[in-house]
Formats: sequence, C-alpha cells, structure tokens
Amino acid sequence: MLPEPIQQCIDAFARLPGIGPKTAARLVFYLLRTRDSDLSKKLADSLLNLISGTDTCPVCFNMMNAGQEQCGICGNENRDRQVICVVEEPLDVPALERTSGYSGLYHVLHGALSPVEGITPDDLKIKELIGRVRAGEIKEIIIATNPSMEGDATGMYLQQQLSGFDIKVTRLARGLPMGGDLEYADQNTLLRALMGRQEMD
Amino acid sequence: MLPEPIQQCIDAFARLPGIGPKTAARLVFYLLRTRDSDLSKKLADSLLNLISGTDTCPVCFNMMNAGQEQCGICGNENRDRQVICVVEEPLDVPALERTSGYSGLYHVLHGALSPVEGITPDDLKIKELIGRVRAGEIKEIIIATNPSMEGDATGMYLQQQLSGFDIKVTRLARGLPMGGDLEYADQNTLLRALMGRQEMD
Repeated sequence: MLPEPIQQCIDAFARLPGIGPKTAARLVFYLLRTRDSDLSKKLADSLLNLISGTDTCPVCFNMMNAGQEQCGICGNENRDRQVICVVEEPLDVPALERTSGYSGLYHVLHGALSPVEGITPDDLKIKELIGRVRAGEIKEIIIATNPSMEGDATGMYLQQQLSGFDIKVTRLARGLPMGGDLEYADQNTLLRALMGRQEMD
Repeated sequence: MLPEPIQQCIDAFARLPGIGPKTAARLVFYLLRTRDSDLSKKLADSLLNLISGTDTCPVCFNMMNAGQEQCGICGNENRDRQVICVVEEPLDVPALERTSGYSGLYHVLHGALSPVEGITPDDLKIKELIGRVRAGEIKEIIIATNPSMEGDATGMYLQQQLSGFDIKVTRLARGLPMGGDLEYADQNTLLRALMGRQEMD
C-alpha cells in the first residue's frame, strides 16, 4: 500500500533488534516529514562505512579503525600491561573506561558460554586469552563478564583454564548497586551483598 | 573512545526520534556483532533511495513513488470521487485503508494547527483542499484529524472554511475504543461517549 522506497526502508529498520514495524514506520516518516535528506544521507554513509571502516584488534579483540595494527588501548604505553580485564562485548570497554578506575588492558570474548544457544569455548576468544597469559608479563586477570548465568559460567570456565598459571584471578564485586534501595533489592543481590560484606576501616 | 566510524554511526542513529545514545549504540553494535553487512547495506541503500524515490501526490499530498503523476488512490477509477477524508499525516492513510471501510479519496494536511509550535493554516495543505472542493464533484468531507487539541482545532477551522459550500462536513465518532474497559476509560472519553450515545436498532 505504501510506495516501494518507503516500504523497503521500513522493512530494513524493522530488522534491527527492538524495532518493530510500527517504530520503523515512525522513524521513516520522521525522515520523510522533515525531508532532512542530510540526516538520511549521513545515516546511510555511516552505515556503509561501519563494517568496512572498523576491525577487531588482533591483540584484545576490541573494536578499532580498520588498518590499525592494534587498538588505542593496546597501543597506549601508559597502560598497565600486567593486568587484563576480560569482558563479553566491545561495548563493555567504554563502560569500564568511563569509571576512570582502570588503567590495564582488556580482552573481549565476543560473547558468553551458553549451552542453550550452542555457544562453546571455541566460539569465544578464550584460546587467544590463554595465549596472552602464556606469553608471560600478566600478573592479574579481572573477570568482568555479566552478572548473569551465562556470564558466571564463562567466568568459572576461565578460572579453571587459568588455574595452572601463576597469576591472580579476580572478578568484579557483587552487591547493592549505588543509589539503590535495600528494600527493593532482589533476594539474590541482597544474598550476594551479605556474603560479600566488607570490613569497614 | 570508540573508533570514528562507530561513533559517527551512533551519532546518526541518535538523531532519530525516540532513539537515545544508548539505544543507538546497541543498534550499531548489533550490526557490528552480526557483521551482517547485508543488513547495513540494505538499510543504507534504502535510506539513500528514501527521499529521492518518493514524492507527494500533487492532488491529495499523500506519499507516492517519485515520477508518478498522482498517487495510487487518486488514480484509482474505482474510488468514490465524491468523498474526501482529511487526515493530518501520510501514515494515517494506511491506517484508514486497513479498516477496509472507506472507498473515497484522501487529503493529507501534513500537520495540524498549533499556535504553540507556530503552525498556521498557511503551513498546511488547506488552500489545496478548498481548491478541490471548489472544483465541484465533492459531496462530503470527513474530518479525520487526531482526537487531540491540535486536531480538534484544525477540524473546527476546516468546518468554518467549508461552511460556504453545499457539502456535508462530518468527523470521526468519539467514544469508547473497542476492547477497552469502561472502568479504565478516562473522564473525557467517557463524557464524549455519553454525549454521542447512539440509538440501538
């Protein structure tokens, strides 16, 4: 019923996660209404450049500009080269960087173990992590996988794999989130906060 | 902190309505993770084609393929040419078409009167509607603007402008939405449903 170019654009938007046909139509008609061809073009150009202009760092598998030898963090002389923080996804890196509380290196697994989805250790960048540890220099691995079933399973598998090396393996603390309300904390979070209680000094 | 091509793509997505920087980042990393360059490319191509491939119908101002003389509805010999349904936006047309309850023509105003946003009758396709009525043939105008303050004001303005012509001016019924629950209907809707009560036959 809609003109072909509009329907095609709606269909393409609707393939993105969390965007249904109604939202897609709203977005497309926004672009049409403002007839902001500058925005349509910018979006189109950036999409064409997205895959071809980026690559994963061969060391830590974080995203980087295509053609670079390694990412900005791996190449930064000022970072602590004895600590690696292991995360599931590239987006976890900027989240940790925003804390300004970490100055070591990263390792992006690109997923988490999940028997349900058929994701095994071979699908993740685990061999590559072991390789980096084997090369020496590393003193500590911080496991920063998500606090979910898959993330915990991945963390435990990594701990196992790393047990033969003379390094410290830690993971991010579990407990009450800042600004939260004890009354509304779920049972599991509260239990973890209790078990992991810290001495005040 | 993110590679330039990724940040640019996030910024472009975030300019769309209802998409904040976090959602934009999620969409871009979805495209990166699946490395589904087919989807990125399809989306980019459809965006480039969106503005250049479409135009507004010179008769009813609905969207149509660029290069057509008039839209599919205006050009359809089987539609009732004595009735025009006036709507605010192009997306309202497929909504009414889906009801299969209307076989007349349309007129898209491209907005509604709004003193707050500075939208005056000259910004809408009102002169063009009057022109169509003046040309004769039309017997009824159905005002199908949104049931909002702006939509109602636009409807009343149109009624005024059309009062000099020998045509029927109607508007969509107000009342309880189907599948709704009387208990949860808001005061205004219930009042309209009461005032507009219909004799059962």
